Amino acid sequence: MSSFREDGELALDWVASYLERVREHPVLSQVDPGDIRAALPASPPEDPEPFAALLSDLDRVLLPGITHWQSPRFFAYFATTGSEPGVLAELLIAGLNQVGILWRTSPALQELEEVTLDWLRQLLGLPEVFRGHIEDTASTGVLSALVVARALHPDRRVVVCSGHAHSLADKAARLLELELRKVPVDDEFRLRPDLLELDDACAVVATIGTTGATAVDPVPAIADACAASRTWLHVDAAYAGSAAVCPELRHHFVGWDRADSIGVNPHKWLGVPMDCSALWTRRPDDFRRAFSLVPEFLQSPDDAVNLSELSIPLGRRFRALKLWAVLRCYGRSGLQERIREHVRLAALFESWVRDEPGWDVVAPRHFSLVCFRREGSDEENERLLERVNASGEVFLSHARLDDRFTLRLAVGNFRTTEDDVRLAWDVLRREASAL
Amino acid sequence: MSSFREDGELALDWVASYLERVREHPVLSQVDPGDIRAALPASPPEDPEPFAALLSDLDRVLLPGITHWQSPRFFAYFATTGSEPGVLAELLIAGLNQVGILWRTSPALQELEEVTLDWLRQLLGLPEVFRGHIEDTASTGVLSALVVARALHPDRRVVVCSGHAHSLADKAARLLELELRKVPVDDEFRLRPDLLELDDACAVVATIGTTGATAVDPVPAIADACAASRTWLHVDAAYAGSAAVCPELRHHFVGWDRADSIGVNPHKWLGVPMDCSALWTRRPDDFRRAFSLVPEFLQSPDDAVNLSELSIPLGRRFRALKLWAVLRCYGRSGLQERIREHVRLAALFESWVRDEPGWDVVAPRHFSLVCFRREGSDEENERLLERVNASGEVFLSHARLDDRFTLRLAVGNFRTTEDDVRLAWDVLRREASAL
Repeated sequence: MSSFREDGELALDWVASYLERVREHPVLSQVDPGDIRAALPASPPEDPEPFAALLSDLDRVLLPGITHWQSPRFFAYFATTGSEPGVLAELLIAGLNQVGILWRTSPALQELEEVTLDWLRQLLGLPEVFRGHIEDTASTGVLSALVVARALHPDRRVVVCSGHAHSLADKAARLLELELRKVPVDDEFRLRPDLLELDDACAVVATIGTTGATAVDPVPAIADACAASRTWLHVDAAYAGSAAVCPELRHHFVGWDRADSIGVNPHKWLGVPMDCSALWTRRPDDFRRAFSLVPEFLQSPDDAVNLSELSIPLGRRFRALKLWAVLRCYGRSGLQERIREHVRLAALFESWVRDEPGWDVVAPRHFSLVCFRREGSDEENERLLERVNASGEVFLSHARLDDRFTLRLAVGNFRTTEDDVRLAWDVLRREASAL
Repeated sequence: MSSFREDGELALDWVASYLERVREHPVLSQVDPGDIRAALPASPPEDPEPFAALLSDLDRVLLPGITHWQSPRFFAYFATTGSEPGVLAELLIAGLNQVGILWRTSPALQELEEVTLDWLRQLLGLPEVFRGHIEDTASTGVLSALVVARALHPDRRVVVCSGHAHSLADKAARLLELELRKVPVDDEFRLRPDLLELDDACAVVATIGTTGATAVDPVPAIADACAASRTWLHVDAAYAGSAAVCPELRHHFVGWDRADSIGVNPHKWLGVPMDCSALWTRRPDDFRRAFSLVPEFLQSPDDAVNLSELSIPLGRRFRALKLWAVLRCYGRSGLQERIREHVRLAALFESWVRDEPGWDVVAPRHFSLVCFRREGSDEENERLLERVNASGEVFLSHARLDDRFTLRLAVGNFRTTEDDVRLAWDVLRREASAL
């Protein structure tokens, strides 16, 4: 095998060149299902191959099958960023190859995870009572929170959320054999608290920044209802939570400090590479009671609480290191700057849509997502979206709002400029007139 | 922010130097709980700091809190390796920052995951009927398998395993509100199939290579019983499964091809950095029925099956890329060579223990783990282990076998040499005589 340093230079150069030229690729991969599989050998190699051969196949075979989440012209779902410090931190994480099981298997992992989650708590303006740890995704986070809620109320088998909550609530309820009750929303896609019935509910999942339209559920009223019925309140702010680093956006988060648990994904809008989902709770002892299980082979002489006692997997990666890298290399001011710029760009795009005859904005814009459509049928809008994405110039996705097919433009990549957003608008109008 | 290429050189040099000198560190971190936390600022930085500052604090603040899983003198739990190609692949993974949700969000991620899991299936000698995907850990894998088993048998609320099965079975059963029934073991710590009662059981978790003693449950007899009662059979081979790359070790795996699902951790003994746990099933349609849930905002024009329909998290990292890197850069022959060398070193250590008066081997050695103890009380053995680990020269862990405190030496790091194993033996004897 060639040397780590030499191969490392090749890998580093590959990533640097990729990031420098990421705009040149079609944003949405243009291959057909099975194309990548067909280009790969059906059997594993018998003997060692050089790392350089891997890089060459990465270019030749895999790159056409990459949808470029790192592209500044990725506007689908919620756009993300694997920022430079975050990417390099992943190299350090893998080099150290820590396995966080017990405190002693990596004191640095455990304590840095506790500290960085506390830093992030402060940045988002949450009170000190919240204790945090990292999950892989918000799906696992909400599943964990519901495990705790169910343990506290074994006779209440209902989870409540709005019809616009993320499908993670459906999946978690199904895995835990709980019934999911979806409460209707108002004309801004917010859960209607006057329709809440919580007597048989162990938990409510309220959303700040729904996936479809970034609607903000009325958390204060929901918290009141939860307090009255002693129902667990989980606030899903997977995407929007990062916006709380900006004081001028904090009004969307009123009441979330009353939640029992809160999920925010730094891998969505805070520059941390996939995966890093933050979960805070004001009731860490309830988490520990629900999850803790330290078998004999893991008994150790120290008295530390282990992070594995708070979540599903026994072992965890040193994800805290990449969160640490991002928080330090951007600082509060750097993160605020990027969130503000994304909100500004989304507002700008929204104004273009509003001012253009034949186009409509179809949901209030709170953060960096614009929901809009071209006047005409659902089918026309769907065809428009397919043409735009097939161009490879930009990538957008859709939602169904008020039962209408709606286009979504989500700004969230740190490298996105005003020119990229203008390109999206140009491509949309060009393809609309070509229809 | 300074440039990615410059910072990347620093990060690469840091990791290379770390790996070159990893033997110099105390293997088990010698800090006390709270030490690392106390050395970190209580609040996040306001303004951006250079990446170099991070590296300097990594050395100064965090390194004392690292337990060196990469050290060739790490013999605790199951020893692992973040191999060089695997580490560099993590840099590529982060650079590309793929989020596998739907096929279209990264065709390369999904199809490479399918292909590499099929390569690994071939390397381990499993039949073609098995379809694989990657989970973070074996805990999540067994949880997923039990979700499917419970869905198939809603009226059977029992999971069966041996008293030596990993605590992952306990945790999964608790999360799914299933009862865990532990079957007694024979004098080699194997589940006794004559004591199996499966009428009310939705699943059996059989283990090939238990955590305590690497015992091998009698899978053929268990498979017979499962077939008779239509009970789901999950084979947990998280550690030992990798050994099936060597034909001469395949006899331990007789019958595992009859399982409904199988878990093997390439992040344990196959050189892939944490985390990468393989899960195969011969019943992928049952998995899909139990997990699939594609909400409107994720509907897409292609017909591909998405990996997110088979597991708990909605989004997944491009873990397949590191598995691909390791399988290619070592090849079948390279992986066989390392597994064989570890088994040889364990056998050598076992012979030293056997030949030394006052020391006993206390469980059959099937793979690369030796279970042994010094004649005397549990307390003496426990004190011995603490002294050995406090020296920092090597790190071992323990198990309780036949209700006796037992020392475990697990060979599993690709960099471990005969000299490292001899050092462990020297330190053990030195500390034993000093007691």
